[in-house]
Amino acid sequence: MSAYKAPLRDMQFVLKELLDCDAHYASLASPEPLTPDLLDAVLDNVSKFAEEVLDPINRSGDEEGCTWSAEGVATPAGFKEAYQQYVEGGWPGLAASPEFGGQGLPASISFFMDEMVGTANWSWSMYPGLSKASVELLSEQGTDQQKNTYLPRLIEGSWTGTMCLTEPHAGSDVGIIKTKAEPNADGSYSITGTKIFISAGEHDMSENIIHMVLARVPGAPEGTKGISLFIVPKFLVNDDGSLGERNGVHCGSIEHKMGIKASATALLNFDSARGYLIGVENEGLNQMFIMMNAARVGTAMQGLCMAEAGLQKSVDYARERLQMRSLTGPKNPDGPADRIIVHPDVRRMLLTQKAFVEGNRAFLYWLIMQVDKETYGNEEQKKEADVAMALLTPIAKAFVTETGLEAANLALQCYGGHGYIREHGVEQIVRDGRIATVYEGTTGIQALDLIGRKVLGTGGESLRGFTRVLHKYCEQHKDNPEMAGMIGRLAELNKEWGELTMEIGAGAMKNADEVGAASVDYLMYSGYVLLAWFWAQMAQLAQRKLAAGEGDANFYTAKVQTARFYYERILPRTLAHAAAMRAGAESTMAISEENMYLG
Amino acid sequence: MSAYKAPLRDMQFVLKELLDCDAHYASLASPEPLTPDLLDAVLDNVSKFAEEVLDPINRSGDEEGCTWSAEGVATPAGFKEAYQQYVEGGWPGLAASPEFGGQGLPASISFFMDEMVGTANWSWSMYPGLSKASVELLSEQGTDQQKNTYLPRLIEGSWTGTMCLTEPHAGSDVGIIKTKAEPNADGSYSITGTKIFISAGEHDMSENIIHMVLARVPGAPEGTKGISLFIVPKFLVNDDGSLGERNGVHCGSIEHKMGIKASATALLNFDSARGYLIGVENEGLNQMFIMMNAARVGTAMQGLCMAEAGLQKSVDYARERLQMRSLTGPKNPDGPADRIIVHPDVRRMLLTQKAFVEGNRAFLYWLIMQVDKETYGNEEQKKEADVAMALLTPIAKAFVTETGLEAANLALQCYGGHGYIREHGVEQIVRDGRIATVYEGTTGIQALDLIGRKVLGTGGESLRGFTRVLHKYCEQHKDNPEMAGMIGRLAELNKEWGELTMEIGAGAMKNADEVGAASVDYLMYSGYVLLAWFWAQMAQLAQRKLAAGEGDANFYTAKVQTARFYYERILPRTLAHAAAMRAGAESTMAISEENMYLG
Repeated sequence: MSAYKAPLRDMQFVLKELLDCDAHYASLASPEPLTPDLLDAVLDNVSKFAEEVLDPINRSGDEEGCTWSAEGVATPAGFKEAYQQYVEGGWPGLAASPEFGGQGLPASISFFMDEMVGTANWSWSMYPGLSKASVELLSEQGTDQQKNTYLPRLIEGSWTGTMCLTEPHAGSDVGIIKTKAEPNADGSYSITGTKIFISAGEHDMSENIIHMVLARVPGAPEGTKGISLFIVPKFLVNDDGSLGERNGVHCGSIEHKMGIKASATALLNFDSARGYLIGVENEGLNQMFIMMNAARVGTAMQGLCMAEAGLQKSVDYARERLQMRSLTGPKNPDGPADRIIVHPDVRRMLLTQKAFVEGNRAFLYWLIMQVDKETYGNEEQKKEADVAMALLTPIAKAFVTETGLEAANLALQCYGGHGYIREHGVEQIVRDGRIATVYEGTTGIQALDLIGRKVLGTGGESLRGFTRVLHKYCEQHKDNPEMAGMIGRLAELNKEWGELTMEIGAGAMKNADEVGAASVDYLMYSGYVLLAWFWAQMAQLAQRKLAAGEGDANFYTAKVQTARFYYERILPRTLAHAAAMRAGAESTMAISEENMYLG
Repeated sequence: MSAYKAPLRDMQFVLKELLDCDAHYASLASPEPLTPDLLDAVLDNVSKFAEEVLDPINRSGDEEGCTWSAEGVATPAGFKEAYQQYVEGGWPGLAASPEFGGQGLPASISFFMDEMVGTANWSWSMYPGLSKASVELLSEQGTDQQKNTYLPRLIEGSWTGTMCLTEPHAGSDVGIIKTKAEPNADGSYSITGTKIFISAGEHDMSENIIHMVLARVPGAPEGTKGISLFIVPKFLVNDDGSLGERNGVHCGSIEHKMGIKASATALLNFDSARGYLIGVENEGLNQMFIMMNAARVGTAMQGLCMAEAGLQKSVDYARERLQMRSLTGPKNPDGPADRIIVHPDVRRMLLTQKAFVEGNRAFLYWLIMQVDKETYGNEEQKKEADVAMALLTPIAKAFVTETGLEAANLALQCYGGHGYIREHGVEQIVRDGRIATVYEGTTGIQALDLIGRKVLGTGGESLRGFTRVLHKYCEQHKDNPEMAGMIGRLAELNKEWGELTMEIGAGAMKNADEVGAASVDYLMYSGYVLLAWFWAQMAQLAQRKLAAGEGDANFYTAKVQTARFYYERILPRTLAHAAAMRAGAESTMAISEENMYLG
């Protein structure tokens, strides 16, 4: 089984060369500046932690899984120790507020860390991942007293956090949750109900677990406008900060899942558990959604992680495995067969993975820098970043995970039968990754958010703002002869993107179902166009470096070649998505519910 | 967890109405005629066996898996007993020769049985499935003495068979196998070597296991021309037919796999095991490949099985699960939310599955009837069937399993997070089904076989024969106003199919890698066109029935609507495949091997 090696070369290319992160970080008013040296040091240290500590317990974690007992949940061998090392390294607090013990760096640094940690061991990454989300929520929404009570311990990592939204009957439709919050005389609330699918909901890594829980107070309005947000610690916290009595929240079971088996997915029973209101009653969903964009980009990262993991393995395998002769004559005449990397269809599978990995990395890193700007940018930066994040986050979440899953499946396919057995670890990537298009909002939910709320909900304005950026890019570079093919195609697609939006919008005036019927095709189309923009930028940059004779010519040559592969072999999928959208909703809606299956 | 219900209504539609199976069976010279009554009785009885015996042990089989010990392999609870029932029902011998105890029916009957058995429990279906393949091989290639020794027990099911091709270093590339066969003085051979991935290679269901083993005799030519085929029984057989001493073949381990965990995938060590040559030395691969088409259609069936299994579950779930309101206003105003089947994107996912299930069923059943014609047809039928099988089998194997896997993943997606946990059984479908695009020749191998051997290898003649059939169909029906849209599109695609073939052929003259680079896009394109032909035929038939007021109007209406969905929402994928093919091989081949990954 080939070991994970952090792709620092490509990460640095995207950060330093494509996105000029040094200038970006210098422009931010973060409490601590992320200097080039510090960035390099963090990436370097995290890469070692991912490669040396997390990767070696990835497969064993999958095989052992988590173990439930009435006393709690035991994580697989090595998980607790790895978490301890992570805490000792000070990693949980990289981007958290110095006021509560954090290092005050821009948020993006923790996403780059997440990429390496998540590629090496996604299951493990769920524990600090959910905790980070709870820190962000409390930092944004908590009272001073709440922050003082919980943040220092969450930020140092001795406690961890969770997000408790889903109930058995309420998944995408969080508006229908039933968990109750009855006010107590002392200002706290008594929380009663059942939450499911709670990642890191119970485990043995930290001294306390702080649950962020959505529930309804008595008399709350129905639906999403009647939901409040509560802090429910596993152990109550005494005034001096020490742990008090066990609260009434218990893990009833953990799920048996297709993958991410080392991530404990808990069913939590709240039985008059003591909870503390965050903000005001009935504003819980808005409070929770303020940080949803960042969480969704975090989940999008899983798409990149699984694609990177599969690419590394399948390229290694394709270089070693001898099977069949090249169609153009033996390439390894002294061996019994040629290395399978010579076969065109194996190359197609590898290049498809490479095109998604590197294209999606550029897209996500760019998007993550918008998170920095939202937090520490000037007013103009904030405004731009808000618009970009709103529009592009659902695309990132759905497109990067869908294409990541495709890439992971291609990695398995490169192995043939050897990919289906556990030995090489590639089937685990597919099983672990399969959840990514589902949780944190399914692809369908993201698609509705994109076309419904973000695009049509702004009368198309947010998209127009963005297509103008692409248009300007195409105008600037259309006379570059090296880029003519790509820029021409990008300009056409950018124009069609706007046209398709208008057509769907017009259809929606007559029939709202036109929006839903087109939504996933629209999202995927949008994703392919976005990646075409990033690939054009990378190809252009690489060509400039090659022309100037700067840097590693192999690296830049591969970039240009992969860009071309993307444009020629992958981007044509926009044709299919556009035609499917333009067919309209009728064939999707015509069949009656009773006739949907007549086997 | 919803239980499997055999889709007899749709199976009967395809068999009786679309393919006129009564006339088909009446035209065959099978030892026993498959009368309409007998067909119905078999389908009915098998459906009960699949629903009542096999489906209930599908999930438990996955959870328990197979257990290896030095003494042998134990199958999960209930598997042995189910196999006993299958044997007692006389099912193993349905299509086998009456001379050796079979029932002498046309082969297709056993494929329809396979669909139901395989949808209910694919792991279990592997044991009789491999045995059937060994019966076919021995029936075709064995001496009278070999047939008399093995066939009666294999056909009654008290013994089972296997196919032993793969070795650790030799998968797709069977030409480089190393297993040795040294001649003994008595005319038998001593077989020594290691075979891996042997389905049903060791288990506790039958008294003996008869391995069909590829090996090389001393001095054999290198490569595929130096491979011979041997019978290697687990227990040697005495002259009176009783079991003799244990032969030198032992199961060293079984694989730990992503899915089909109840199917024992054995590593077999042959240590001077006694083997008996089938036919003549060095002709083994041809002998084995004679029956490869039928085996590949059998594996294609897994694509249909997983899609049917997922469709049944996800439609049930979509009818029950209440989540969100319809975009066009509440459809279930008295409930807390609408059933998710009202949402356009859920309908898109269900209809995509339905279009693949029913389209692929029509395609496979039609193809399976060609198997009948090859065996029991007149000379003209045989010739036609041979050509059709050669051309279409690789498409069936790869296209039906690829689209089956897509369908299974959409079924999981319909469940949201509930699809990722074991409870509903839908994640098992994805895990079990993932092997189908890999074994019995990967998608890439099928695609090379199609475009290289079958199409370009015949100078395009086999494809021209087939596109003429489609052309004639389009000419016949182009004036039917109800069908105008579909027939027009089908005619265009049929024409383009020929053009693309010519273009790839012309490119291949200059560079053989053009074939490999286009191969999978070509295969998928071909599959979509084929399914368009079957959907046009089904729509046309259904419209005729509706116009005549015959039969179940709901069923026919749904057929017409699903056909339209297929044409409008799925068939546009041909645009992407055609454009990707036309881009040529350069962007696939340009990147150097060293530069394939630069992370």
